[in-house]
Formats: sequence, structure tokens, C-alpha cells
Amino acid sequence: MQSIQSEGYPVIFENSIPELVKFVEQGNYSRFFILTDENTGEHCLPIVQTALAHLDNFDIIEVNAGEENKNIDFCVGVWKMLIDFGADRKALMINLGGGVITDMGGFVASTYKRGIDFVQVPTTLLSQVDASVGGKTGVDVDGIKNIIGTFTQPRAVFMADEFLHTLPPRQILSGLAEMLKHGLIVDRQYWDTLKTSDLSLPSTELIHRSVEIKNEIVLQDPHEKSIRKALNFGHTIGHAVETWSLLNDKDPLTHGEAIAIGMICEAWLSNQKTDLPDNELIEIIEVLGGLYPHYQITEESLPTLLEHMQKDKKNLNGNINCTLLTNIGQYSIDNICFADELCDSLRYYAAL
Amino acid sequence: MQSIQSEGYPVIFENSIPELVKFVEQGNYSRFFILTDENTGEHCLPIVQTALAHLDNFDIIEVNAGEENKNIDFCVGVWKMLIDFGADRKALMINLGGGVITDMGGFVASTYKRGIDFVQVPTTLLSQVDASVGGKTGVDVDGIKNIIGTFTQPRAVFMADEFLHTLPPRQILSGLAEMLKHGLIVDRQYWDTLKTSDLSLPSTELIHRSVEIKNEIVLQDPHEKSIRKALNFGHTIGHAVETWSLLNDKDPLTHGEAIAIGMICEAWLSNQKTDLPDNELIEIIEVLGGLYPHYQITEESLPTLLEHMQKDKKNLNGNINCTLLTNIGQYSIDNICFADELCDSLRYYAAL
Ligand SMILES: NC(=O)c1ccc[n+]([C@@H]2O[C@H](COP(=O)([O-])OP(=O)(O)OC[C@H]3O[C@@H](n4cnc5c(N)ncnc54)[C@H](O)[C@@H]3O)[C@@H](O)[C@H]2O)c1
Ligand SMILES: NC(=O)c1ccc[n+]([C@@H]2O[C@H](COP(=O)([O-])OP(=O)(O)OC[C@H]3O[C@@H](n4cnc5c(N)ncnc54)[C@H](O)[C@@H]3O)[C@@H](O)[C@H]2O)c1
Ligand SMILES: [Zn+2]
Ligand SMILES: [Zn+2]
Repeated sequence: MQSIQSEGYPVIFENSIPELVKFVEQGNYSRFFILTDENTGEHCLPIVQTALAHLDNFDIIEVNAGEENKNIDFCVGVWKMLIDFGADRKALMINLGGGVITDMGGFVASTYKRGIDFVQVPTTLLSQVDASVGGKTGVDVDGIKNIIGTFTQPRAVFMADEFLHTLPPRQILSGLAEMLKHGLIVDRQYWDTLKTSDLSLPSTELIHRSVEIKNEIVLQDPHEKSIRKALNFGHTIGHAVETWSLLNDKDPLTHGEAIAIGMICEAWLSNQKTDLPDNELIEIIEVLGGLYPHYQITEESLPTLLEHMQKDKKNLNGNINCTLLTNIGQYSIDNICFADELCDSLRYYAAL
Repeated sequence: MQSIQSEGYPVIFENSIPELVKFVEQGNYSRFFILTDENTGEHCLPIVQTALAHLDNFDIIEVNAGEENKNIDFCVGVWKMLIDFGADRKALMINLGGGVITDMGGFVASTYKRGIDFVQVPTTLLSQVDASVGGKTGVDVDGIKNIIGTFTQPRAVFMADEFLHTLPPRQILSGLAEMLKHGLIVDRQYWDTLKTSDLSLPSTELIHRSVEIKNEIVLQDPHEKSIRKALNFGHTIGHAVETWSLLNDKDPLTHGEAIAIGMICEAWLSNQKTDLPDNELIEIIEVLGGLYPHYQITEESLPTLLEHMQKDKKNLNGNINCTLLTNIGQYSIDNICFADELCDSLRYYAAL
């Protein structure tokens, strides 16, 4: 399967582990550091470590797993370890994990000594189909997602589907939401294929197509000034629900579960505001409702959810800007949505 | 006096405050934020605030003064204030202060929502002649200077010598060290002019020439891969002394005082290793010795000072790389210096 060329770096789909080894061997790095969390340390690191066993110039940095640790304190911890390990400007970071590790590791690397090289080895479906291209790094402050970050490209991305075998089904579903989104915003045919595929473990071909779609969009708008906003479909409301859940639930929603909710709400807004046909709204609800469990959203939570949306970084001048659909496979950016419309969409979801 | 054009932005020397006002008025920003410390809040902010009095879309963020506050915790504080003030991606930061404020404010702006616009209004001589061009932002971690940062250009730099009138003489001397360095590394004539000028308050012409010199160098090497290292003259040892002093002295050395020590030590190394003539070494010692107080460096402090140098970000593969002089007005980069040579240079200084 062909590599995908992004902004100055390749996303490699074939022989990825040997390719990673080659990259490290030929890279003339003073030392390299593998960032993992507890889970990828257990399930993915052994594969990488075996492949790199003949090299001795590396250290492993393990952090706790989970979005609640994707914050600046953990970055400080990793920066301090890099200092203690004597990492210089010719050091390389290998971020081995899901989106938390690739986002946080990317931010740490892009700011350590004003930027050292890093590569991404995404080990969740979500990080493979979404975080792998686009150059966004980020961490949370005060529970506000990705409020701090940089636009910095990795040197390469290595995709290996063998990592996905140890991924819990809920994590597969989390990534799937982004793949479904890619179909909904620009590719009706891809959406149709997904609908009829076995999605318990999406094929490499399907993953490849998702990366291709995302890549085409980000290459046209690297700094999210215009059409990249297409990718925000489902995310205005989804992010708010995700933040809410992270702050209130014992077992919080995954990113994709929250985005699935956001996509239903924003599909309803599309039906109201941008003429998404009724039958397509129903189709979206059926597909997403068939894959994702229903989540309880109470009337009392609406003001807080709105507040989260207002703090979300995509909003200019205090207005809430949504990406909506005009059809399945066709997006429309910069639709100003008012508080009561957003609440009504959440009420609509709650009543499903 | 002509503006200096740096990497995509102007450094403005004439009518700077009115020019700043014009910039803000025409910039189409959603809101702007002025970052100050206690001292610039007292001495410089009134001037700026008076000029901006007709605008109401701004907030002031004041932090404690001093290098010991140029750390990630203060950044978190500023990020949180930006969140609370509802700063969106079209917000502007105006960094009004010395190098601590311009470095930290630049870092905060370059990472908030993955980067918002910022302008620099340097109010110390040091920040005018040094921090104003080059695109480096940075903060300290664990007392290691600028270990975290980005390369990000401001939208503009506004230089106003009226700010310098409230600056204590020690702070003038601090900036002067960089100006002297500019002469030593590339411009013998400028060095000679400085030697014979009244330096209690350097003229705008002299400041302009320093910015010009630094700018010529950084434009050739924005990411410090080669000739920009020229600017490190005096800094390998100087930074170590500065860190030491910050950790040990009640009234720590200023940056320039530490760099002046570093320049004497590295001039001695130049005499030993790159054939800086004896008479030029003596001339450098006389000029710097006449301007800066002598600082006590004990034999016991040498191991710690060396450790600081090893952690310094300019070192690749653990070696210590120094920029030295072959003559006054001519630099030589990438001279590997060994531990005993560095210690001997500090001993030489101690015995002066
Ligand atoms: N940069 C971007 O463009 C971008 C895009 C989308 C999402 N994100 C970010 O990604 C994050 C979510 O990504 P995520 O869901 O991958 O999060 P994650 O990194 O928290 O991974 C989810 C869980 O799976 C575990 N895990 C990872 N790989 C595994 C494997 N192979 N086997 C078993 N367990 C494994 C992790 O330890 C974690 O517990 C969010 O923080 C989001 O903001 C970033
Ligand atoms: N980015 C770069 O390229 C670069 C270059 C050189 C130095 N630096 C950084 O700059 C910092 C040192 O700069 P600095 O000496 O300007 O530090 P500073 O900002 O701490 O200023 C020195 C002192 O002067 C006070 N002050 C500032 N302006 C004043 C005014 N107009 N009147 C009265 N008091 C005033 C400040 O409050 C502070 O107490 C260091 O952190 C260094 O790393 C950065
Ligand atoms: Zn997403
Ligand atoms: Zn300096």
C-alpha cells in the first residue's frame, strides 16, 4: 500500500516497523526517546523494542495513560526527563501511542530546546486516522482540550495495523467515528462502503482512505483558516460533551463516542439550517445509533455544555461557528449557531 | 531612523508608540492583551495606556518581575487568564517589558490555541538590542534557561528609547554587554566607537547598529544551525555563571554581567585556542573590567558550573562547543572545549 505524502513527511503503511528502524539508523541522531503510556508500554513497546534491540542509544519515557494526563504538568515531567537524560538538539522523540501520546509528545518535542525532531507511531485507530496527519500538537489546561499547542510536522508517521489487535472494541469505535465523519463531509461513496463493512476491525484500505481524505484537506489549509474547518463537523458539540463527561463521569466517553453524539446534533442542525434532507438525517442517526450507545444528556447540563462550546478554540468574536452538512458527502463551514439552536439539537439527541 | 526589516516583520525606531497604536487599530483583532511586570506596569504601561485610551477592547495581564518567574508555571497562569478573558485565535498579545516578558509572552502567544499574533515592545536595553530580533521565545524549567521555547516571529517590534529613562544603570550595563559582543564578533569599528562613547545611556544610533548586526546574522540562519552561533560568544560560560548566580546569590548577576564574565573567559580561550592576539585579549579585559564589577568564582563552584554548561542547549553529543574570536571583529564557531580548558578560563578570570 502506497505511502501518503503530507506536508514534508511520509505516512508509511507498509513494513512500518522495519521502516522505522531504518529511519532511526539513518537519521544521525545523538540519542532517541520512546514515549509510551502504561498500555502501549505493555502492548506495543515490546514489538518496537525487539526491532530496535541492536541499538543502545535510547531511553524509554512512560507516562500514565488517559486524557486526564494530557496536560502541562505531564509535559513538564517529560521535559525534565529529557533534561536529565541529557537530550540535545539532535535527539529524536518516537511517540508510541494513541492521540494523547502523539499530541503531547509532539508538543513536548516541538518546544524542547525550541524544537527537536519527532516521529509518530499511532497505536489507536483514532490516532491513525486522525492525529497522524495535520501537524497539530496539543495539551489541555484546566480541562480545556488542546488549548495549548503548536503546528509542527513530524519527520514521518509509521502506521502498523498489528498494534490495533490489542485495542479494546470501544477504542476501535472511537476511531471509527472520525472515519464516518470523513465520509459524511466529503465522500458519500466512502460512507456507503463503511456502512456495509465489518467494522469490528476496519481494514488497512479503509484506514488508508481516511488518512487520504484528511490529508487532502489539511494540505489545502495547514493552519485551519478555512476549509480545514470541514473536519470540525460533530466537534463543536462533541468536544463540549467530551469535556463534560471527562469532568463528571466515572467512566468518561471516548473522543469518538462524544463526536458521534456531536455528529447527530450537528446533523439535526444541518437539517434545520443548511437543508440536509430528512432521509439523510435519519440515515445518519440510524448508522451512528446502531454503532454507539446512547448517552444521557440532562436539561441541567445544557448551560455548562454551552459554556464549554464558548471556550472552544474555534470560535471567533464569541460567536459559535459550526461546520454543517448540506448533503451526506458535502460540508458547509462557518454557520453561526445560536445558543438556543445548540440546546435544541442536544434536546433532540436526548429524546432519541 | 529607518526601520529594520527582519524575517517578515519590521523593527520600528521612529514614532514607535503612535505606530503601535496604528498597528492595533488596523489589525482587525478581536481583543488585545498587554503583558507587563510590576516594573513595566509602573513605568511603561502608563505611556502605552494613554496612547491607547480611545480603545476599550483590551485587558492587562501583570506578572511578577524577574528571571525566577520566567517559568512554565507563570505561563500556565497567563494561559489561564487568556482563557478566562475569552481570548480567541484573533487576539493579539502586546509584550511590554524586558527580555523576560518578551520571551515568556512570545512563548505564551506562540502556543495559545496553537499560536496567536504578538508584538514586542522591549523596554530594557538588553531586550531592545538582543531579544527584539531572531524569533526566539523561551522559558526556564528547573532553573535551566530557555530550555523550552519556540522559534516564532512577532508581527512587529516597537523600539522607544523613552522607556530606557527609568531603567536602573545596572540594567543599562546588562544590555551593553550584548552591544559590545556585537562589536567583538563582527564589527571592529563598532567596538571602537563603543569604547569611546558615553555609555551611561547608549544613543539610538548605537542601538540601531546593534539590532542591524544581530538581524544580519539571524536572517542568514534562523534556526541556529550554523553562523548564528556567532552570537553565543561569551554565552557558554556566561549562561553557566548566570544560572549559578541565580541559584546561589541573594542579588543575582544580570544577564549582561554574567555574559561580560563569559566574554572574558572565552576571550582567554580564544587567545589559547584560536590565536586571538595577546594585546586584543588585554584590550577586551580592560574595557569589560572598566565597566563591570568583578565577581568571585571559587574553585568549589567549578564542577557545578561545568554541569550547567553540559546541560546548555547548544551542546551536541555531550561536547561543549564554544564560539571564540580570532580577532576583535571576527568570530570562529564550533570550537570544542574540554572541561579542564573551561575551568582554566574561569580560574584565569578569578585571578584577574
Ligand atoms: N492532533 C490531532 O490532529 C488529533 C486528532 C484527533 C484526536 N486527537 C487527540 O487524540 C486524543 C484521543 O486519542 P486516543 O483515543 O488515541 O487516546 P489515547 O492515547 O488516550 O488512547 C486510548 C487508550 O488506548 C490505549 N492504547 C493505545 N494504544 C493501544 C494498543 N495498541 N493496545 C491497547 N491499548 C492501547 C491508551 O493507553 C489509552 O488508554 C485526544 O486527546 C485528542 O485530542 C488529536
Ligand atoms: N529571545 C532572545 O533572543 C533573547 C536575547 C537575549 C536575552 N533574552 C532573555 O531576556 C532576559 C533578560 O532580559 P532583561 O534583562 O530585559 O530582563 P527583565 O525582563 O527581567 O528586565 C530586567 C528588569 O528591569 C525591569 N524593567 C524593564 N523595563 C523597565 C523600564 N523601562 N524601567 C524600569 N525597569 C524596567 C524589569 O521589571 C526587570 O526587573 C533573559 O531571560 C534572557 O534569556 C532573550
Ligand atoms: Zn476528532
Ligand atoms: Zn545574551
